[in-house]
This record gives sequence, C-alpha cells and structure tokens, in this order.
Amino acid sequence: MKILFIGDVVGSPGREMVKEYLPRLKEKYRPTVTILNGENAAAGKGITETIYRNFLEWGAQAITMGNHTWDKKEIFDFIDEAKYLIRPANFPDNNPGKGIIYLNVNDLKVAVINMQGRTFLPAIEDPFTTIDNLIQEAKKHTNIIFVDFHGEATSEKQAFGWYIDGKVSAVVGTHTHTQTADERILPDGTAYITDVGMTGPYDGILGVEREAVLKRFLTSLPVRFEITKKGRKQLNAVLVSIDSKTGKAVDIERILINDDHPFFA
Amino acid sequence: MKILFIGDVVGSPGREMVKEYLPRLKEKYRPTVTILNGENAAAGKGITETIYRNFLEWGAQAITMGNHTWDKKEIFDFIDEAKYLIRPANFPDNNPGKGIIYLNVNDLKVAVINMQGRTFLPAIEDPFTTIDNLIQEAKKHTNIIFVDFHGEATSEKQAFGWYIDGKVSAVVGTHTHTQTADERILPDGTAYITDVGMTGPYDGILGVEREAVLKRFLTSLPVRFEITKKGRKQLNAVLVSIDSKTGKAVDIERILINDDHPFFA
Amino acid sequence: MKILFIGDVVGSPGREMVKEYLPRLKEKYRPTVTILNGENAAAGKGITETIYRNFLEWGAQAITMGNHTWDKKEIFDFIDEAKYLIRPANFPDNNPGKGIIYLNVNDLKVAVINMQGRTFLPAIEDPFTTIDNLIQEAKKHTNIIFVDFHGEATSEKQAFGWYIDGKVSAVVGTHTHTQTADERILPDGTAYITDVGMTGPYDGILGVEREAVLKRFLTSLPVRFEITKKGRKQLNAVLVSIDSKTGKAVDIERILINDDHPFFA
Amino acid sequence: MKILFIGDVVGSPGREMVKEYLPRLKEKYRPTVTILNGENAAAGKGITETIYRNFLEWGAQAITMGNHTWDKKEIFDFIDEAKYLIRPANFPDNNPGKGIIYLNVNDLKVAVINMQGRTFLPAIEDPFTTIDNLIQEAKKHTNIIFVDFHGEATSEKQAFGWYIDGKVSAVVGTHTHTQTADERILPDGTAYITDVGMTGPYDGILGVEREAVLKRFLTSLPVRFEITKKGRKQLNAVLVSIDSKTGKAVDIERILINDDHPFFA
Ligand SMILES: [Fe+2]
Ligand SMILES: [Fe+2]
Ligand SMILES: [Fe+2]
Ligand SMILES: [Fe+2]
Ligand SMILES: [Fe+2]
Ligand SMILES: [Fe+2]
Ligand SMILES: [Fe+2]
Ligand SMILES: [Fe+2]
Repeated sequence: MKILFIGDVVGSPGREMVKEYLPRLKEKYRPTVTILNGENAAAGKGITETIYRNFLEWGAQAITMGNHTWDKKEIFDFIDEAKYLIRPANFPDNNPGKGIIYLNVNDLKVAVINMQGRTFLPAIEDPFTTIDNLIQEAKKHTNIIFVDFHGEATSEKQAFGWYIDGKVSAVVGTHTHTQTADERILPDGTAYITDVGMTGPYDGILGVEREAVLKRFLTSLPVRFEITKKGRKQLNAVLVSIDSKTGKAVDIERILINDDHPFFA
Repeated sequence: MKILFIGDVVGSPGREMVKEYLPRLKEKYRPTVTILNGENAAAGKGITETIYRNFLEWGAQAITMGNHTWDKKEIFDFIDEAKYLIRPANFPDNNPGKGIIYLNVNDLKVAVINMQGRTFLPAIEDPFTTIDNLIQEAKKHTNIIFVDFHGEATSEKQAFGWYIDGKVSAVVGTHTHTQTADERILPDGTAYITDVGMTGPYDGILGVEREAVLKRFLTSLPVRFEITKKGRKQLNAVLVSIDSKTGKAVDIERILINDDHPFFA
Repeated sequence: MKILFIGDVVGSPGREMVKEYLPRLKEKYRPTVTILNGENAAAGKGITETIYRNFLEWGAQAITMGNHTWDKKEIFDFIDEAKYLIRPANFPDNNPGKGIIYLNVNDLKVAVINMQGRTFLPAIEDPFTTIDNLIQEAKKHTNIIFVDFHGEATSEKQAFGWYIDGKVSAVVGTHTHTQTADERILPDGTAYITDVGMTGPYDGILGVEREAVLKRFLTSLPVRFEITKKGRKQLNAVLVSIDSKTGKAVDIERILINDDHPFFA
Repeated sequence: MKILFIGDVVGSPGREMVKEYLPRLKEKYRPTVTILNGENAAAGKGITETIYRNFLEWGAQAITMGNHTWDKKEIFDFIDEAKYLIRPANFPDNNPGKGIIYLNVNDLKVAVINMQGRTFLPAIEDPFTTIDNLIQEAKKHTNIIFVDFHGEATSEKQAFGWYIDGKVSAVVGTHTHTQTADERILPDGTAYITDVGMTGPYDGILGVEREAVLKRFLTSLPVRFEITKKGRKQLNAVLVSIDSKTGKAVDIERILINDDHPFFA
C-alpha cells in the first residue's frame, strides 16, 4: 500500500495547489491513503473548519498539525468533532483533540500519529516516551503506522527516526517548510525524511511575503507576516510504499512541483 | 567557471571521504575551485593545522568554518598564517582570523565569504549589515562571490539568500548536516541551497554516535558525543556553474554519495 | 545630586502608582532627577503619547524603554518629537528614536542611556561595544551618566555592571519585574542593582492576570495576557546619590511600596 | 518551627562560608531544619560525596540541586545512597536519585522537594503536573512541605509560587545566584521568594571570575570559567517560620552576609 503525504499547506496558495494537484497526484501515484499537514492552511496560521472540510473533499483522509494548531480560535469549536484532524500527541494531556487516529481503507487499518519536537520549540511532553506508548497501543490494531514529526532541529528529528526504526512504517518531518534530500529506508524498515517541505508560494520565505521577513531581520521592528498571494507556487510531498503485511516500508520518493520541477502526469 | 562545495566534513570518516572522492569528483565535474566546510573536521569539533593542510593537499582551495571554529585550541596558533581558512565574517571584530579571502585561479579572482546566522545560535554581529559591506568590498575585485552561510533556521537562511540575490554568485547553507532539496537559481542570478549537508558517517545522527544522542534525548543526562568511526559513509556537496564575466550563476546541482546514492564516474 | 529611578511601570495600576506616589517620593527624597521605565505603561505593552506626556507632567524627566518599545504602533508617530523618551541604544541603527539624552538640571548635565541585553532576548547590537562608544561621547559633556540596562540574565547584567564600573554613575537593571536585593556601590564608584522591579499590580504575575499566566503554563494553549486592574498595587524604585563633581555614586537605596512595605513620609 | 535555607553554594568560597557561618546562623536563628542548594558546590559544577558529607557535618539536613546536578561524574556512584541529596523531581523518570525526601525532626516530619523550571532551561517534565502529584503524596505524611524551585524566569517562578499557594509551606527560588527582594507570605499561607541568591565570592559574576565572563561577552570566544577563589565572600539565605500544625508560613526573612551587610550575632 502507498501513503501520499503533503507537507505544510500554507494559506490560499497552498490550498489551491492541493485542490489542483491532489487529483493529478492520485491519478499518477495511486496512493491508498493521502495525509497532509494543515497547520498553516488558514492564512499561514492554523486551520478553520471550512478548510478542514475542503481538504477531505479534495481527497485527503487525515490532516496533521503542529505548533500552529491553536492559532485560529474556531478550532476549539470543531476539533472534538473533526475525526480526521490530528494534533501533536505530546501536547499536554488537558489539551483538546487527539494525537492518533485510525483510518480504515479497504481491509487495511492505518494508524496516523502527529508528534512535535522540543528543540527550539516550546517545552511539551517528551516525544520519545509518548511515542513508545502510542506505538504499543497502535500495534494492537495494525502494523501500518505513519508518523508526522513536527520539529525544527535536524538532530532531534533524526534521533526520533532512528529511535523508532523498525517500529513504525514511516516518520516524515514537517515544520521547516524546506524539503530535505535525505529520504531513505532505515535499516529496520522505517521510511524516513527530515522534512517534507511546504506547499504554497514558491517565491516567499517559508511562504511569507519576503518584504516583511526581510524588514524583520534588518530592523528587528514588529512586522505583520502575510502569505504571498500572487506569483508562483509549489507543492512538496513524499510517497511511501509499505508492505501491508509487515508494515515495513519498501520505498520513499520525494515529490516536488514548482517552476523548476514541473509536474509530469 | 564551476565551484564545487563540500558540506561540513565530520571527523575522520568525513576526511576519508574527501580524500577518496575529491579527486574523482574533480575528474568528473572539473570544478575551477573547490571549497569545503571544515568546522567539524577534527573529531567533530573544530579543525587542526594538520587537517587544514591535508584538505589543501587533497585538492581544496578554501576551508570555511562556523560555530565550531574555536573548538580546537590550536586554531589560535595557526589561523593567522592559514591563508585559506575562513571563519564567519560577522564574528566580533576582536576575533582572530578573517571572514573573506580571494582566490586567484588562472585569470579569475573568486571572493569566498563565510557568514553565520543568529537564529538559534549565539548573538554575534548582524549578518545582513556585514554582508552589505563585504559585497561592496569584494565587488572592487571581482564579480564572482561565493558565500557559505552557516545557520540553523530555514527562515534566516532563505531571507539571507533572497537579500543578496543578484549581488553574489552563490549562497549555500551549512550547519544542519542535512542536505535540502531546494537548490535553485534565484530570479536575479544567485545560486541558492538552504543546506549542502554533511560529509562523514551515514548512519550516525549528524555524524555522531546514535547511542549517545539517543541517551541524551531520553534522559537529559550528560553524554560524550563521539563521531561514528565504523560503518557506512556519505559525502554531500553542490556544484555551482557561474558565468565568469557577469558573476551570475547559471546552474546548481546537488551531489550525494552514499550507499543509497552510489557514485558514478 | 540624587536620581530617583522607578522600575517598569505596568498598565493603569502602574500609572496610578506613579501619579499618586511620585509627588510624595519627591517630597521625601528630594531627587534632582526622576527617571522611569515605561515600556509596559500602555496596558502592559509599549507606550502612547498621552501616557508619555502624563509621566512628564507627574514629575518624571526621562522615560526609558526596552523590548516592548514598539508594541504600540503610535510610537512611530511621536518618538522623533519625544525629547525625553529613550529606547535601547543598541537597537539596529536604522531604528527610529535615540538611546541617549542629556538633561540639564540647574547647572548640572545628566546623560541618561538605555541599553538592552541579548541573553534570552533578540539578537541586537553588542551592548558592550555600544556602551564604550556612548560613554566616550557622554564624557565630553558630563561625568554624571545613568544607565538603564534592560535585560533578562543575571550573568549578563552583572557582567555589564562590572564592565563599566568607574565609567558611569549608575547601572540599574530592568525587565524581570522583580526587585533584587543586591544593590551596592561597586569598587570604582558605580551604583549597581540587577533589577529595580516593577510598578503596578502587587498580586499579578509580573503585573499580568494570574489566571491567564497559569493557564499558559498548564496547557501551553494561547491566552490573552491582561493587566490585573483591580486589587493591590506596588511601586519599586531606587534612589542613587551621586557626587556631582566626580560623577561617582556614593549611595544606592532600594524603595519598595506595597501592602507588606507601606510608605512612610 | 523554622527552616533555614541557604542559596546556591558556589565552590570553595561558598563552602567556607557555610562552614564558618552556619553554626553562627543556627545560634542566632535556631532553625529546626537547615537546607542548602549544593548544585555548584564542587568548583561551581555539581557536587562530590565528600562535599555532600561535609555539608551534613556542618549542620545541613538536606541538600537540593538543579541543572548542574550531574556535572561531577562521581554523583552517579553515591546518589542512590545519599539519603539527604535531592535532585529536581521533574527530571525524566529514568534518572537516578529522588526529588522528594522526608526529614524527621523531634516529632515533626518535613517534606523537602526540589523542582526545576523549563523556561530558558532544558525541556524536562512539566513542573506543575509533577508538583500536584508530589503534594498529594507528601500530604499523606505531613503538612510541612518545603520546595526549592530552581529556575531562570521570574514569570515561571512566580506562576509556580502562586499555583501552590496554600498547598505548601514555602517555595523558594534558586539558580539566578541573585537574591530578590520580593519575599512575602502569599495570601493562602505559602512563604515565597523568587530567588534566595548565592553563597560564595562577593566580587565575581554569579561566583565566576569576572575576567573570563567578560571575555566571553566581549569576544564570544570559548573561555574556562573558574570560581573566584580569593577575595571577599557572601552568604545568601532565607529563614521561614511555619506553624507546625497547619503547615502555613507565618514569616519569611531574607539573610544577607557580605562586606556591605555584616553579620551581627
Ligand atoms: Fe508549518
Ligand atoms: Fe510548524
Ligand atoms: Fe557542522
Ligand atoms: Fe555548525
Ligand atoms: Fe517590563
Ligand atoms: Fe522588558
Ligand atoms: Fe546555581
Ligand atoms: Fe542552576
């Protein structure tokens, strides 16, 4: 079976890319399941119920989040009912929402987990202890376990990947909005990539208007970060192929769609 | 003209890869100039005079550094005489060493600059102001300017790249030890990649023994980080092609050598 | 001559304390000059022109700021005309405002400088290099130099104090909103205290509503920080006595006004 | 009953101050129990078994620690047998040592807890959740509960104090090595101070040689931090008076011994 995972979808340019290309990617790659990270989907910060529903309509089966989970206040109104919305599992226990869901596809069950790192990010629960518990739980139901690890530091992301090599089907990184070229199958059968990259503007800085970001770096003055709405766009994703019986990954392929890497059907 | 740049060389495995593959890369790609980042060359921390000389013998013309510049004390003894060793130009003015050098190759002059970011890294001089001054100086001598920007945050690295697009031939990122897949020629002619990646162990965590790094993340107890000496190795690099007259980049190509990406002559 | 310095004035409770007690403190201590830190004066974040003018009317001669300088947008409209408003001198050169002013009182001239630390705070210009230049400039005009060093880390604040011991009359810390008990005259004649403390609510957390701060620590969820408007209040200050001729400090006295330390005229 | 708590004892100057003044403080204040923070007792970094035993001989009944707990390797050899050595309770579960102990004095039982903050410090377990559990456990045995909260940020320390106001007898802060002047009895009966301050050199920077610290701030170059061995010394402490039946604090008094605040018997 194959899982298509689309990296951080940023603002309306990101959503437009998903709407336009997800059907074409499905036609080309025939994924069994499609997951996307939606933490920046609403103007770069958080997600709304409408956008969440759009993603499902356009063909995603699960939406993962990250440090921007709570940026749009309305999430507190719909997260409990949003069956396919997953926020980092190591957020404090008293937080609304859930960090693991199970998808049933044909006769397969897929566990999808969202985690967040702590290096250069807020101090939340230890992701290593948390994942031990979640894997134990998930293993009761299925061998196919997919993890979106939302983190900043390459050391923490790679440590996490090696830590659960052989215990999950795939760990893919998100958050840096920059695709890495280190995709591989680790020795015990887990597909790994440090970061899948982002989906949205191609000529912004992580999707944000360059002028504002540069003003910030040059002056340290407060600026308002707006998503680059006009101009060229990109989509970043990975396709993971998994042996349905063992849950082991057999392949991971990077997908890049932008003016320098045009899509071929 | 072409510049080959090899990402952070880590410990003896990294040095062995340089010694073994640099001649083969030169034969295959025929670079005019070869530069490598050597901040982790001595057991993962800093550089020694012997290693610096080895790099020159093995075919590099310039060695850039980063936050590990001062890790080996002997650097204070030889940095003033080491013509081809460059440390971040935005270190405090009172620091030994230099942040820019000029290489003469045939009838070409190439300015090589090393810079360091400040996001998630120590507070040093502002890299944006510093690069403005350095470019102004370098332009008096040459149009061919190559920058190694040593930084952690993708936002800062990309902001820096866009900031000097059109003013330098190339900005390549180092420090995260993980190659990114976002190499491109920016609209005004500057070659850019967020991180070139590292050269050294293939199965460590950023080159370090996995056991120690994992113990650190799992216990927060102090550990001794050792470079993985046995096992598989990798080399990460980029090749930038530049129009010698205008100094504009015309191409940037990622180079990955490891068991999953074998080298073909 | 004597300088009264009032620590970070927070919101309306802080302003009310200044209005009520500044006249009484003046009557009791007879300061030659009164300075206050106003970075949190407007609802905890920044300052407005009205508040700035109020402070002058109520008896302050200079207002220092800190990391909250730019929080209220209207500051960009009046900072250039606000002769007695000082923001950290080591903000980037391109920032509006100034980091040093001179006050003329009777036949005395007093230089007032605002600086900001970099440990656990944004990377701005090096405060140590900056103060060297400012002291050189100020010494042309006067021996009486007063510095508000706005910083988080006790190590940086104490290092800064020792660094300019004997070169300025006083260095008082601000920003942590908590008065320290380490006021002293350093060996070469500079009055020093790590933090003067805050002026505003007595039962908040740094002046902020406890419920919101606790919710933040307990859940990591986003919260809106409001200044505690009702309830008991405090004022924190220091009085520095300086030899007008030499500019050396001869005494520094902590002032605390709250329910546990009532004011006696 | 009364508890004397001595702030971070730094190196041999700190140990000498304890040896010299603890008997005199005991004579003057007649504390029921004496506790001291020993995380910097061995040359500024960690503690040895000899030093731990010395502290007990000299009159302390419990030794708390902090972020320097593991700096001296020999602690792993003796911490399990060191009944009166307490390290932060919210270190990961797999760490050696304990975060709570019970002292029996006459017919009283005193729970002593050590905790560590997470703001500007490593990401460990949530101190708020941890303290809830520890208080619940301690309450089975005694109403007299004393907490050393080792933390950097004033916001976190004050939030923690207010969070357990009424549930413990006292929360005293350590780690910044600078005594604060905000000691008070919170409304529900808990004695509180943001930081007790340090015990050791009086003219260093947090106890460390000034030259090294200044070189670090001025150059960013690596330096070796040594404890100031010669010169004037200080001792910082607090005395908390507690109603033995209710466990409520009735008084907290700051103690400062240095050349500017001489000791009077
Ligand atoms: Fe994101
Ligand atoms: Fe994120
Ligand atoms: Fe490196
Ligand atoms: Fe580095
Ligand atoms: Fe403040
Ligand atoms: Fe502040
Ligand atoms: Fe300490
Ligand atoms: Fe500490």
